[in-house]
Amino acid sequence: MTRAVQTAVVGVTGYAGAELARLLLHHPRLKDKPPVFAGRVDEKDAARGGVPLEEIHPQLADNNGSGSLKVEPFSWERLKDRGVEVLFLATPHEQSREWVPEALKHGLRVVDLSGAWRLSDAKNRAVYAFEDEGSEVAAATQAKAAYGMPELHRKEIAGAKLVANPGCYATSVILAVRPLVAAGIVDLSHGIVADAKSGVSGAGKAPTSKTHFMHAADNLSAYGVFSHRHTGELLEQIGICASDIVFTPHLLPIPRGMMSTIYVRFNEAQTHESVARIYREFFASSSMVRIYEKALPQIRYSVRTNFADIGFQISSDGRRAVIVSCLDNLLKGASGQAVQNMNVMLGWDEAEGLA
Amino acid sequence: MTRAVQTAVVGVTGYAGAELARLLLHHPRLKDKPPVFAGRVDEKDAARGGVPLEEIHPQLADNNGSGSLKVEPFSWERLKDRGVEVLFLATPHEQSREWVPEALKHGLRVVDLSGAWRLSDAKNRAVYAFEDEGSEVAAATQAKAAYGMPELHRKEIAGAKLVANPGCYATSVILAVRPLVAAGIVDLSHGIVADAKSGVSGAGKAPTSKTHFMHAADNLSAYGVFSHRHTGELLEQIGICASDIVFTPHLLPIPRGMMSTIYVRFNEAQTHESVARIYREFFASSSMVRIYEKALPQIRYSVRTNFADIGFQISSDGRRAVIVSCLDNLLKGASGQAVQNMNVMLGWDEAEGLA
Amino acid sequence: MTRAVQTAVVGVTGYAGAELARLLLHHPRLKDKPPVFAGRVDEKDAARGGVPLEEIHPQLADNNGSGSLKVEPFSWERLKDRGVEVLFLATPHEQSREWVPEALKHGLRVVDLSGAWRLSDAKNRAVYAFEDEGSEVAAATQAKAAYGMPELHRKEIAGAKLVANPGCYATSVILAVRPLVAAGIVDLSHGIVADAKSGVSGAGKAPTSKTHFMHAADNLSAYGVFSHRHTGELLEQIGICASDIVFTPHLLPIPRGMMSTIYVRFNEAQTHESVARIYREFFASSSMVRIYEKALPQIRYSVRTNFADIGFQISSDGRRAVIVSCLDNLLKGASGQAVQNMNVMLGWDEAEGLA
Amino acid sequence: MTRAVQTAVVGVTGYAGAELARLLLHHPRLKDKPPVFAGRVDEKDAARGGVPLEEIHPQLADNNGSGSLKVEPFSWERLKDRGVEVLFLATPHEQSREWVPEALKHGLRVVDLSGAWRLSDAKNRAVYAFEDEGSEVAAATQAKAAYGMPELHRKEIAGAKLVANPGCYATSVILAVRPLVAAGIVDLSHGIVADAKSGVSGAGKAPTSKTHFMHAADNLSAYGVFSHRHTGELLEQIGICASDIVFTPHLLPIPRGMMSTIYVRFNEAQTHESVARIYREFFASSSMVRIYEKALPQIRYSVRTNFADIGFQISSDGRRAVIVSCLDNLLKGASGQAVQNMNVMLGWDEAEGLA
Repeated sequence: MTRAVQTAVVGVTGYAGAELARLLLHHPRLKDKPPVFAGRVDEKDAARGGVPLEEIHPQLADNNGSGSLKVEPFSWERLKDRGVEVLFLATPHEQSREWVPEALKHGLRVVDLSGAWRLSDAKNRAVYAFEDEGSEVAAATQAKAAYGMPELHRKEIAGAKLVANPGCYATSVILAVRPLVAAGIVDLSHGIVADAKSGVSGAGKAPTSKTHFMHAADNLSAYGVFSHRHTGELLEQIGICASDIVFTPHLLPIPRGMMSTIYVRFNEAQTHESVARIYREFFASSSMVRIYEKALPQIRYSVRTNFADIGFQISSDGRRAVIVSCLDNLLKGASGQAVQNMNVMLGWDEAEGLA
Repeated sequence: MTRAVQTAVVGVTGYAGAELARLLLHHPRLKDKPPVFAGRVDEKDAARGGVPLEEIHPQLADNNGSGSLKVEPFSWERLKDRGVEVLFLATPHEQSREWVPEALKHGLRVVDLSGAWRLSDAKNRAVYAFEDEGSEVAAATQAKAAYGMPELHRKEIAGAKLVANPGCYATSVILAVRPLVAAGIVDLSHGIVADAKSGVSGAGKAPTSKTHFMHAADNLSAYGVFSHRHTGELLEQIGICASDIVFTPHLLPIPRGMMSTIYVRFNEAQTHESVARIYREFFASSSMVRIYEKALPQIRYSVRTNFADIGFQISSDGRRAVIVSCLDNLLKGASGQAVQNMNVMLGWDEAEGLA
Repeated sequence: MTRAVQTAVVGVTGYAGAELARLLLHHPRLKDKPPVFAGRVDEKDAARGGVPLEEIHPQLADNNGSGSLKVEPFSWERLKDRGVEVLFLATPHEQSREWVPEALKHGLRVVDLSGAWRLSDAKNRAVYAFEDEGSEVAAATQAKAAYGMPELHRKEIAGAKLVANPGCYATSVILAVRPLVAAGIVDLSHGIVADAKSGVSGAGKAPTSKTHFMHAADNLSAYGVFSHRHTGELLEQIGICASDIVFTPHLLPIPRGMMSTIYVRFNEAQTHESVARIYREFFASSSMVRIYEKALPQIRYSVRTNFADIGFQISSDGRRAVIVSCLDNLLKGASGQAVQNMNVMLGWDEAEGLA
Repeated sequence: MTRAVQTAVVGVTGYAGAELARLLLHHPRLKDKPPVFAGRVDEKDAARGGVPLEEIHPQLADNNGSGSLKVEPFSWERLKDRGVEVLFLATPHEQSREWVPEALKHGLRVVDLSGAWRLSDAKNRAVYAFEDEGSEVAAATQAKAAYGMPELHRKEIAGAKLVANPGCYATSVILAVRPLVAAGIVDLSHGIVADAKSGVSGAGKAPTSKTHFMHAADNLSAYGVFSHRHTGELLEQIGICASDIVFTPHLLPIPRGMMSTIYVRFNEAQTHESVARIYREFFASSSMVRIYEKALPQIRYSVRTNFADIGFQISSDGRRAVIVSCLDNLLKGASGQAVQNMNVMLGWDEAEGLA
């Protein structure tokens, strides 16, 4: 399929939304088909055809002041009239729970960036306390969802009507750990530790005491200890149980970027080369993962790219490893991966528009 | 007067309040008389005698977990019962307009950190749109207020019942410009430019889109151009009129600290030494101002001190100067100056408890 | 001219060099002709064909670990063999003084990012103390140089063999002030003040006490007062003399981005619209300048774009203006403008590869 | 012993040195006895009696411009003439190896802030590759050294001639882990993970590519994986062997402050209260440790204090814990602990001058 498709984005006002808009506007396949931006728009703005995108995100303005790109009032009819085929939802969890079934009913293909449809196990979903949990519609919708990590589920995504885009922390940990667990070299009885650190954009655009500059700057804080929502994704996608891993997120005083430092023990001694080979083979057909064979990745290397960077070091006895996994929480951790999923869904090169 | 006095602080929850608490708790004259902290306290907290200070500001905790310092429910009776003589108000402008007259009626001496009583000219006050503007009580209260900049008004402060603690921007500009204007060397017809930059604590503790880490970090923004509230203080205290100065504040991506870069032209050629002499003489009895004669001050030199740092450079023709004035907006720009004012009011060494 | 050309970059190791590499590698016209990277390379690295670009700038790596892009040992022969037509020099001033005449002799077209050839007036060049100052070759080379600001010199650049890419501070001030001075509305007798602030990348890659994190972070410092090297560019390009302007740079605690806050007085009262019109007309055919008509630009809006953002506010009497000019010091202030100049030289759309 | 003593500081130019100077200058027992500052001083500076301290650390200046505090040329005679009794060495490891034996010979009591004398086991010292390793003098000196962590070795420190001040990372991990290991509840067979993060001041004052603002800002990087020098201190002071722990330091984009996130498994299920009790008892007589029983500590709570802040969370099965340990790397992690050690050595209250 090489023709352009019409996309739409709901939820462009947030940080992930802004990145998604930027990526879609510059995507080589979509150049002549800018996405339809839709959302809640008040009457006054509706009267002028919507809110110019550059009023929300001045950095996205070109220099003609035309403000031609607008966030229009959302309706299913409008999406239909505009010929939308692929819908991106960068909306709160509850809204995605409500809208995704409708979107599927309207025949749209959906990439949902929220946590609404990522978890197949109800036990893991409990932390979200979804209102529609247990309903038939919800179950049917969940059954259609592919977990949107092309490195693990490329085929499923290609055929899916609904792609649940992974959490940022989850992406950084799963890509680093899954290959080793799949290879059978990890001694799970000793437990995995994932100590993760994320920039403030991960905490969302709402001004809160936690996102206040005076809280975040010159600081580091741990949160969600033993309770972070992304834990369920780790369990389902790595294929382990809750007691096998401790995952602790921290809030870094940087705008964007994420590092997970991961500690594993091996069943038997490994060498740097034996581990590198496992990663290389696992990601042989994955262009958006970079394996660092000499140095360790740092956050700034992956920021503003869609790469997941993975490096590691092995103890002298070959039995323990420290793995460092970095990515941009707004790109490979959110909107970049969403576009990667769209590429896979449409049969395009997975990396297109992501360089 | 060498005996200790009982102080009280209303408004300890903000950034200036936290610094004020720290200073008063460690003030050598007040060691055995910790301030009374008072404010709005809900019923549940009132039942446990108030909110432990360390729950609001964990950095102020000692290690005994006793939580003995508490923010108690405010009432005038309580202040009286506790023998309070000096009241610090770190409250919003409108609240200070209301409470200061009452405090004076109760015989308290007040240091008010808000903008409520700084301006003697109603024209300059207009920007605040005080509800009680024009009332008799307000006029009588204003008449009692000393502008709390000891370097300019030491005597008035010593005798005052009410000290209006200056704005942070105002302090940094006035201390740098007033000596030169007073010496008659500034060519006002060419205008003064004060380009000021402040850390985020100056924007207050309320989480807003402006104080969000994602807005402030890696950024610089100008605001309040031709309209900032501190302008009136500049006019009244430097003794100039509105067309003589352009003052532009900017929000710096740092937690605290402030720099004003000030541009003046001279009536006739000056030398570095002639200007230095004017500053030295003006501040001869002022221990909290440091004149930089070699290098220029930088923000980090004055942060966490109560010093105002002033340096300057003269053009080769001796007709123009760039003056750099730095201070900590929470100390010399707020709570440090408030304590300095208390020291002056009580006949103590002006720098006591501020080293 | 629509065919691709072969470019070369000397000096890719610095911050501007990295951005230049990124831009040229993704330039739509040059996709199949990656630039030749050349520089000093030691014997060991020469033996492996040069230093892989991704060892110097890991963020530029793709994921195939091929390291195919290399910084090769520089020689004029090599450039010739590789068919280089356009040479970018991101080299120190003195090196550019030496190499540019040679490059021109070899028939190359040059975009020089250093300060070597920006100033036509020897008086203004004095601050650089070039060793070859006064030589015949230097004079002849200078005579060939076009000042690389397309918004002012598009035609000259189109025909030039040598383009002297402007300084970052100079770009931000000239673009904001030149239109108003050209329109004759600025009262120069009152003087212009340009208070500029730049991120740390502007201070270069060499680790110094000034670029140390502990110096720059949580700080602001003024430097080069009355003496910064970019002043000569302001004088020559705006068309004013030294006493007409005071320009003060400051070091901001951010990686990249720049703001100049500029203060001018007008000969007669202006309105917001009258000034906006002057800017709009001046930049009518300039796609890389954005005029802000409602809010003021902030640094973060222009960072990682090639736009120069200009906004302003007029005093109520219409006689004074505060102009805020923002750009990314590594893009519009360096490598982005260099690519823009290349586009103009080659007859391509000026904005190509810069979106 | 309540009389004042004369102290001296060698190595005041670094970050720890500046903090040490500040603490000693304001120490209530030493007010009238400012420390002697000594170091390498060139001839020109020697001629003016040394380098004024405020030229090195402008933030330490008072406002009289007297520059009376000077870094004088070092000699043992001078220290003797000045009546120095306690010597602080904030010098490189090798210099401390050389000077400490001499200082002891001159009858001085020494607090050494370097890593020179912290490790009693030669195997652990190997990483430093000391030139005098194995010499008789070195062995005799090491035998005299007390490990300067009052919470573990108060008595030894009180009687010691030589106190080896601990490493910052070591302090943050040991204080958090030693109490639990000593109580016998930690299952060492599963291994301890200590994921530590430090501000840039920990990397020293030398400008390097690692301390460059452009490297550190907006970044996070792991380093010293499986090889950091502080590991030996962990082993000796916690009482474990190398395979029991993995310790990974990271460089945080903040000036100062440190957090260690520590993962342990318990032999049998614990409760929050059972663990809190262990900590409370262990630190019952330690005023510089704060146990957080409700929330977790954050870096900013301990920065600019001498407190070590420890908090923790227990998994629902009671078998695993995440411990968060924060301190200021320049205070409890260096100079504050050095002053605490001096207090203990001199029989003063351990917290004196550290509030």
